[in-house]
Formats: sequence, structure tokens, C-alpha cells
Amino acid sequence: MSGPLTGLIPATYTPFLADGRLNVEGVDAQAELLRESGIDSVFIGGTTGECASLSVAERKALAERWIQVAKGTMRVAVHVGANCQGDAIELASHARQIGAAAVAALAPNYFKPATVEDLIVFCAPIAAEADPLPFYFYDIPGMTGVRLSMSAFLRAAKHRIPTLAGLKFSNTDLVELQECVRFDDGGFDVLFGSDECLVAGLCLGVKGAVGSSYNFAAPVYQRIQAAFDRGDLATARAEQAKSVLLIKTLAEFGYLAASKALMAMLGVDCGPIRPPLRNLSKEERGTLWERLAPLDVFPRKLCRPE
Amino acid sequence: MSGPLTGLIPATYTPFLADGRLNVEGVDAQAELLRESGIDSVFIGGTTGECASLSVAERKALAERWIQVAKGTMRVAVHVGANCQGDAIELASHARQIGAAAVAALAPNYFKPATVEDLIVFCAPIAAEADPLPFYFYDIPGMTGVRLSMSAFLRAAKHRIPTLAGLKFSNTDLVELQECVRFDDGGFDVLFGSDECLVAGLCLGVKGAVGSSYNFAAPVYQRIQAAFDRGDLATARAEQAKSVLLIKTLAEFGYLAASKALMAMLGVDCGPIRPPLRNLSKEERGTLWERLAPLDVFPRKLCRPE
Amino acid sequence: MSGPLTGLIPATYTPFLADGRLNVEGVDAQAELLRESGIDSVFIGGTTGECASLSVAERKALAERWIQVAKGTMRVAVHVGANCQGDAIELASHARQIGAAAVAALAPNYFKPATVEDLIVFCAPIAAEADPLPFYFYDIPGMTGVRLSMSAFLRAAKHRIPTLAGLKFSNTDLVELQECVRFDDGGFDVLFGSDECLVAGLCLGVKGAVGSSYNFAAPVYQRIQAAFDRGDLATARAEQAKSVLLIKTLAEFGYLAASKALMAMLGVDCGPIRPPLRNLSKEERGTLWERLAPLDVFPRKLCRPE
Amino acid sequence: MSGPLTGLIPATYTPFLADGRLNVEGVDAQAELLRESGIDSVFIGGTTGECASLSVAERKALAERWIQVAKGTMRVAVHVGANCQGDAIELASHARQIGAAAVAALAPNYFKPATVEDLIVFCAPIAAEADPLPFYFYDIPGMTGVRLSMSAFLRAAKHRIPTLAGLKFSNTDLVELQECVRFDDGGFDVLFGSDECLVAGLCLGVKGAVGSSYNFAAPVYQRIQAAFDRGDLATARAEQAKSVLLIKTLAEFGYLAASKALMAMLGVDCGPIRPPLRNLSKEERGTLWERLAPLDVFPRKLCRPE
Repeated sequence: MSGPLTGLIPATYTPFLADGRLNVEGVDAQAELLRESGIDSVFIGGTTGECASLSVAERKALAERWIQVAKGTMRVAVHVGANCQGDAIELASHARQIGAAAVAALAPNYFKPATVEDLIVFCAPIAAEADPLPFYFYDIPGMTGVRLSMSAFLRAAKHRIPTLAGLKFSNTDLVELQECVRFDDGGFDVLFGSDECLVAGLCLGVKGAVGSSYNFAAPVYQRIQAAFDRGDLATARAEQAKSVLLIKTLAEFGYLAASKALMAMLGVDCGPIRPPLRNLSKEERGTLWERLAPLDVFPRKLCRPE
Repeated sequence: MSGPLTGLIPATYTPFLADGRLNVEGVDAQAELLRESGIDSVFIGGTTGECASLSVAERKALAERWIQVAKGTMRVAVHVGANCQGDAIELASHARQIGAAAVAALAPNYFKPATVEDLIVFCAPIAAEADPLPFYFYDIPGMTGVRLSMSAFLRAAKHRIPTLAGLKFSNTDLVELQECVRFDDGGFDVLFGSDECLVAGLCLGVKGAVGSSYNFAAPVYQRIQAAFDRGDLATARAEQAKSVLLIKTLAEFGYLAASKALMAMLGVDCGPIRPPLRNLSKEERGTLWERLAPLDVFPRKLCRPE
Repeated sequence: MSGPLTGLIPATYTPFLADGRLNVEGVDAQAELLRESGIDSVFIGGTTGECASLSVAERKALAERWIQVAKGTMRVAVHVGANCQGDAIELASHARQIGAAAVAALAPNYFKPATVEDLIVFCAPIAAEADPLPFYFYDIPGMTGVRLSMSAFLRAAKHRIPTLAGLKFSNTDLVELQECVRFDDGGFDVLFGSDECLVAGLCLGVKGAVGSSYNFAAPVYQRIQAAFDRGDLATARAEQAKSVLLIKTLAEFGYLAASKALMAMLGVDCGPIRPPLRNLSKEERGTLWERLAPLDVFPRKLCRPE
Repeated sequence: MSGPLTGLIPATYTPFLADGRLNVEGVDAQAELLRESGIDSVFIGGTTGECASLSVAERKALAERWIQVAKGTMRVAVHVGANCQGDAIELASHARQIGAAAVAALAPNYFKPATVEDLIVFCAPIAAEADPLPFYFYDIPGMTGVRLSMSAFLRAAKHRIPTLAGLKFSNTDLVELQECVRFDDGGFDVLFGSDECLVAGLCLGVKGAVGSSYNFAAPVYQRIQAAFDRGDLATARAEQAKSVLLIKTLAEFGYLAASKALMAMLGVDCGPIRPPLRNLSKEERGTLWERLAPLDVFPRKLCRPE
């Protein structure tokens, strides 16, 4: 499995036991659901994967399990970003050794790079350690507070990070998106990060998308992609509206915790979310099921939570 | 001229004399350029029109001139929003009396409405005073700092503001955009406010757009619209890239001041910008001309500034 | 009455009738309460005075009434700031003609000055029109969003605005406060704007303070000042704690609306607050009274609201 | 060494070798300077100590060295906060075992606690692991983006975190500061975090302060404290002005990197700063020395950088 990351790429959940410990076996059921959904690439240990709540050792164990389970049938992109550059380098080295398809890293967010140059100085040794794996910078300013121009980053990093393959673009600035998509005649992958606006991303030329809702609602996005491909924007918009409803419903309950609860309704137990995020109460899970069950977006029928 | 606002709707500049006084005669040359550009609707006295820097008397004089010049051949939507509700009501009454096609109002931005309900209480008397003119709420959180859900506003205001026709949506939240476009089976106009992302707006279903760059670069947007209409997204994106370059170039010099300088290069003297914004120096105007002259986006050849 | 503004300076409320119209007669009862409280300077038409919700004509009428009522026994500083520089100049001229003691202006907040230079260009003609009245810049970044260094402003404006007397400093940056207080050997008045931290301001060297709670709770602040003057910081802190409790209680109900309701409980009817702010319900006023009545901070016993 | 943390408490730097590796031996020279400065408590591995840029193993090695060097003559408070709760628990356990005087933890800042309750759920197991060491919550919203009421936290956490001793309050909200200082009759330590406003903190009742500039400029703060203690606020303010000048000068060059360069000028080589922060160039260090050398705030004469 090589080549660029394209299509729908779920940002996977990290499975925990009820007591909060890592449950690497939980990866298997996730992979099964994704195969059933026709997915062939995953992005692991990112925001959806609660990267900031995992120790370095846990991140390695998670990556190993995914590589094993993928057995060469899925591309596994490993997120290795960390506030401590040394930790990120260690994770990049590990990802390379175990056979990941690509690595990605976000900006440090306690001490923040002030310029594109600072960001390159931070990222370059991480990418170098993963060489020859393709490196993606993961831009997610809403979480990191780091707001740097990604088109300026591509221009400057192109010659400084030889393995730079593109961006995971979890940023609402569609002007920058356009510039990144067009940069170097489309020579860099721009992986779109706003599931609820996928149709806009496709119109603006993106070829791949990384997001959490591709875990549990791939069918609706596949219908969007198919409608878009045949030029039927009205249908694409109507399907996108279903995705918007899904995501806004989850957001009312706390998006990440609610979507982990939804995974359980799909028969894929990813366990609780770690602090400082808050799990849904039993009552909230019941209400969520009632709200979600009628939606025509899921790959499996939702089981009522106990 | 009645019916909803659709197509490309320039948000016009307010013309001043060199000493900063209002120059209502300057409206005529603007209207001529717009007619030449195939434009049939304008949005006057908005952000581009420096609304916050005008007195109430100046706003009335500006509106009167536009109505005279339009002579029934252009729809004139008048922005009447103000921090002082009484001022906005007075402007709404005036707009109705002189024969405007529609009125719009933004949220007060010193004291800010905390909820959709507060916003409706502020807007309803303004809209009522303009009745039977259609009323548009002008959502521009980047300027006002008022960030309220526009889909929630439409739902609540539908029954409270009988003349509510829609929104001028100068907001980057494309999830809300989708919801507003679909609300009530598309019963409300959602006028897109991000010129540099027009193609994304069209893909998401907007039917009209209000913006400053439609004053001076209508041709490129008309090509975007035409390409979109025939399903040629690649061309639409390529034309949009020209618009992005134009707008980013202007922004380097201070967008509003630079675009007023550009109007002069098109033979339409709109005069200086008022404080606290800053006009371009003579040197900056020269540099701007050099940067803009080669672009294939304008309705006329650019004159070199003296 | 001339000389610098010192001591406790209430930022007065603007009185309205029940239907929202300006009630200039309401000024008289306010002035009476303030005289009874030992106050000899007022700051009118500022944030507390709902400046942004008043028309230019209303602001003039309000200023005229205050000058009449003050009859030379109180210094009346008139806030003339506005987004439209022309409106501010007109108000400054008026303030000079009617005999105000000083004028103040805040930064325009829709279009914002980007630099100290832009701010000076905006303010200088306003100050010039009021000459020879002393001019205060009113820095309130939490409302305007304009965050410029006030020490840099004093340094640059000293030679550009000959009547510059100082600042109304409604800003939490105590480093800037220190620099402004020390600038030019204390040659500029820095009027402290955080009533709930007055003791900190006094420790840092301020000589005057402008705020809303000096309208209705002057006694507690006079005790703070007296304790501070005799070096009894423990008492000053204990009294300040009462002020903190008062202000946090008001803030729970919406500070400005609640404090207008409190004025009525003191027998000074200032009427409702204008949209987009929201008045307290009858029940809320009852609850507020119950919470406030026991506090030992008021100049008069609070009347229970009807 | 037991009891609460009081007085001036330097937040120490983490020493690195020129190649960026941890240099635990560098602790010794720091401790020597602090003893010479009359300091008897330190706060290690906090923001000044580049906590976010250190691995867990490095943080343990750093803490061990400080405990050894302190040899019971200095109180060593160890910062154990981390985004990953498990890492923070591991560090808390280690701090207890090696004989730290106290532990502190900041809020996770990638995933953020939304409520005081979420924050307590995150902190309680960390504090429990360090029991019987006193636990301080380290509130630094400017870095973490977590803005929760610290007075509400104290009220709620008092019964949930039995070892809670107080706060490191690196927050500009002086109303909250007052409430925390007074809470429970002053039963909790509120360690002030704004070195450049120490005199304001003392006026508001703080008994201890944690900051970076106590490493390199203890004399000026000791003069502030002494002047304050004898009621001489004019001198306290004049000394504080020197601290303000020092800190603003450092900030022009990038505060943390510049202050590490300053440590070297004092003969205490703490090495470079880690990415994403940027070290001063040789020229910048020369300029910084020229600007700082004349200041009357340091415990030793500054050596010119090579």
C-alpha cells in the first residue's frame, strides 16, 4: 500500500477499557466496520483518537495494533505530533519501523510557533526521522490556536522537508484551502477536515478527506461523492444535509464523547472518553439513540444502549 | 423592480471629496460602471460603503442619489443598520419613502445582543418601519463580534418579522450557510458574502451574492457563474483563483482603502477613505497598479494613478 | 470648575421614559443623589450612559441638561466618541459651547484603528474642536476590541494633541497602567476604570477613577479611599470585597440593566435600558433587591421594587 | 522544609546542552544563584521550565536533580501537569517518592475542561497520587486557553481534593484574585504570577509569588517587598517600574528565550530554548546585554555574551 492518501479516511477512535486503560484489542472491531464500509485508509492517533490524552507508550501500542490488523490491506497514517519535539521524533521513528503508510504531526500548542519558519524548524526533524514515509502537516487551528498560512507553509517547507506530502486541513479558511489545492499544480495532498462541508471541499478540488464521521457514517459520504462525481449537486447537498444533522446532533451532547457512544451503538465498543472530556450519562445515551436511530446515514442498524 | 435579490450584487463604495466630505455626485459614475458590467442590483451603505463612518444625514443623501440614478433600472437595497436603534428606524423609514427595493440591518456591535431573541427585539421595529420592503439581516460576525446562529435566527424570526426575506451572510460558517439555504425549503434568500469563495457558495446552493469585488471585477465572477452553470467546476475554480489573487493583493495594502484606489484606476473616483482607516500613499498606489494591471479580471483597462 | 479630574467620578446613566424615549428631566434626581454622596465630577454619555444607543441629538440634549443641573457645582466631562468622526466632532463642538469641563472619546469600533498613529488621526480633530477643553482618550478594549498600547499613545499623542489631559483607562492591563501613570512624571491623568479593583489602582498610583458603581455605592469606595490614605490596606481590602460582591451580583442579572434597576431602588428612576440589552423582569428585580438590600455599600436604603 | 509556599518563588529554567539535550548538572549553578539571592523555595518544570517541551523521563530527571541539590535547604515544588492525565499521575507519584515539597498541575489544554467539575475530575487523581504533598492548581489561561473561575474551583474542590493547598495564579483577573485570597478566611495560598505587577498583588493580600524574573532579578523584588512592608508605596512603585522595564525589554526579544540568554549573562548557563520557541541570534544577545547592563535589578554584574 503506497501512494497518496485519497478518498474518505476515518480519523479513528482510541479504544479504552471501562476503567480507562488502553484496549488495543478494540482496534479489530473498528477495522472490521471500516472494511465493511469500503474504507481502505485510516488516520490514527489524531484528535479523534485523543492523542493528547495518551502516553507515548500507548501511542506506540495503538499504532502497532493497527498495522497488524491492517495487514497490508489498509493504509495506516500515524499521527505522531506532540508538544515535546523529542516525543514526536520518537513516535515518527517507531511509525517508520512498524510499517506505517505515512506520518502526520500537528503544531505544538502550549508553546506555539510564531512564524512559518518556527513551524518548519519544529516539523523538519520529525519528518526526517520518518523518512521515507510521506509527511503531512496537520493544521487544526481551532484546537491548537496556531494560525499560520498553510499556503505560505507549503511554499517554504517544500524545499526544507523533502518528504512533505501535504496537509490535513482542519481549518475553515477556504481561501487558504484553494491556494493549497492549487499550489505546485496540485502537487500536494490537501486532506479536507470538515466532514459537514465535504461537498464544498470537493467543489474546491480536494481529493481526500480525513474525519471522524467517516468511521460511523461512511455511506452518506459515499453518496455525496458519487453524486458529486456525476455532477448532481442537488443530491450531494441533500445528502450533506443529513451529515450536518448527524454532526449537530452529536455536538449537542459533546461531539467526541457522543460519537464514541455512537460507535458502541454500531457494535464497536471504543469505551469511555478520557478526562478532561466527559462521558455521556446513561440517560443521555438513550436520548442520543432515539435522535440518531431514524437517520439514514449509518452502515449498520444502531443497537439501543443498555 | 421587485422580487428577491439574486445574482451578483455589488456592495457599493461611498464617494467622498478629497477633503472627506460626502460627494453624492460620485454615485453616477459608479452606477455607469455597474451597468456596463451587467449589474442590476446594488447594496448601498454597508461595510464597503463605510456605513459606520457616515452620519445619518449623509446616509439619507447617499440613498436618495442612488434611487435617482437607478431610475427603476436597478434594484437598490439600502443598509440601515446602526448601533442606535432609533437611527436605524429613521433610516428604514426614509428608505421606504424614497422607493428602495429592500432594507438590511446588521447587529449592533458596541452593546451586543446576547441571544437570538435580543437580536429579534432589536431588528423587528426596524423591519416594521420599512414594511412592505423586504428585510434582510446582515450577519457579519468578523466585524460586529456578534456570533449567533443564523439558522436559529431564521426559525425564530420567521414569525416575528413578517417582512423577513433573508440574510446577507458574511460569515465563514458553511454549516450554518447550508442550514439557512435549506431552511423552509429554500424560502429565504441567503446572499453569500465571501466573494473569494463564490464557487463554494454556489455549490452549497446560494442564488445571490453581495460583495465589494463585484464593483470592480464583475467579469471574473460572471465567468465563475457561467462555468458553474454548465457544470465545469475546473474552469470555475481557475477563475476563482484569479479572484483570490486579486483580493489577497488588495488586502496587503488594506483591503477597503486599496479597493477605493482601484475604483479610481477604473475611472470611478470614490475619493479617500475616512478615518480610522488609512489611505494608500502615492507610492503604494503606484505599486498596487503594477500588481493589478496584468490581472484578467476587470471590466475596463486600469489607468495608472497620477 | 477647572483643573484635572480626580477622585470618584461616576459614569452616569442616561434616563429614559418607560417607552424608551430620552427623559432629560431624569438627570436632576441623579445629580441630587450624587451631591448627597459627596461627588463633584461626572462623566456623562459613556458606556454606562448607553452612548452607542443614543442619537446625536439625544446626546446633545443630555449634555445640556447635565450642564444646567450642575450649575458650576459639578465638573461635567462629556463623552463625545462615535464611530463617525464627524458626529464626534459635532458633539465636541457642542460640549465646548455649552461649558463642559472636559471631553473624552473612545476608539471607533466597527472600523478599527490598526495603529496608534491611526488612532491619533482619528482623535486629533475631535480634541481640536473642543479646544481649550481637556481631552481624555477613553480606552475600553473589552467593548471596542481596539487593543493599542496606551503608553505608546501618550508618547506619540503628547505632541500631536495639545489638549490631551489623560486617559479613562478601562483596561485590565496593569503594566500599561503603571507606565501611563509614570509617563512624563505623572503629567497625565489616568482615570481608573475598574471599580472592583480600585484598591489596586490606588496602590499603583491613580488619582481618579471613573465608573458606574460610584453612582450607587459611593460610600464603600470613599471608605476604601480613606483606609488607603491612612495606610490601612486590610480595611481597604475588606471594603473592596463588598464592592466585588455588589458588582458580581449585578453581573449575574446583566450588569448594566441590573444597575439601572438598582438606581430605581435608590429612588432615582433612570427607566429601562435600550435594545439590544435586555431589561430585568419583575421577578428578577425582586430577587435582585433581596440579594442587594443587606449589603452595606449604598448611600440610601433600597426601596423594594413594585 | 514544610508549610505553605510563601515569599518569592522562582519558576526555574530547564538547563539544556548546546545540542538541546537535558543538562541536569546545570541545575547546580541555578541553585547557587538563588541561594545567593536569598531564595528558599523553587517551582520547577513549569512554563518557564519548558514543561511542554520535555519528555516524562526528562521531567523526572530534572526533579531528582533539584531535590538532590536542594538537600533540604530549599522547598522544591514540582510541576507535574500534562495533557495526558496518566503522565501527570506518574509524575505526581515520582515527586512524592523523591521528597518534593509540593506538586502543582495546570489544566490540559488540547482537550479542555469545559467546567470546574471537569477540571476537578482531571486534577483529583493527580493530587491523590501525590498525597500527602500539598497540591496547587496552576491557573494560566493565557497559555492554556482554559478560563474557569478560580474562586468557584476553590469552593468546589475544597471538599474533593483533600490536599488542595492553593493556586498558582498566572491570570490577570484581579477580581478573581481578591476572591481567592479571601476565600475560607485566607485558608488557601494564592501564589501571584504577574511579576511585573507584584506591588498590586501585595496590596490585594497575596503572601507568595511564583515567577521567572525572581531567578535573575530577586533584588528588585525584595526591595518592593521591603518598601511595601514599611508602607512606602512610592518606593515600591518606583522599584516595580524597574521590573516593568526589565520585563518589557526581555519581551521585545521573545521573553523566554531572552531570559535564558540573560541567565547566561549572570554566569548560569541554561543553554538554548527548545523548538518551537526561537533562540536569540548572537547580535540580539549583544543588543540585549547593552539594554540590560545598566539596569539596577540584578544580583550579579552581567557578563557580556561572547
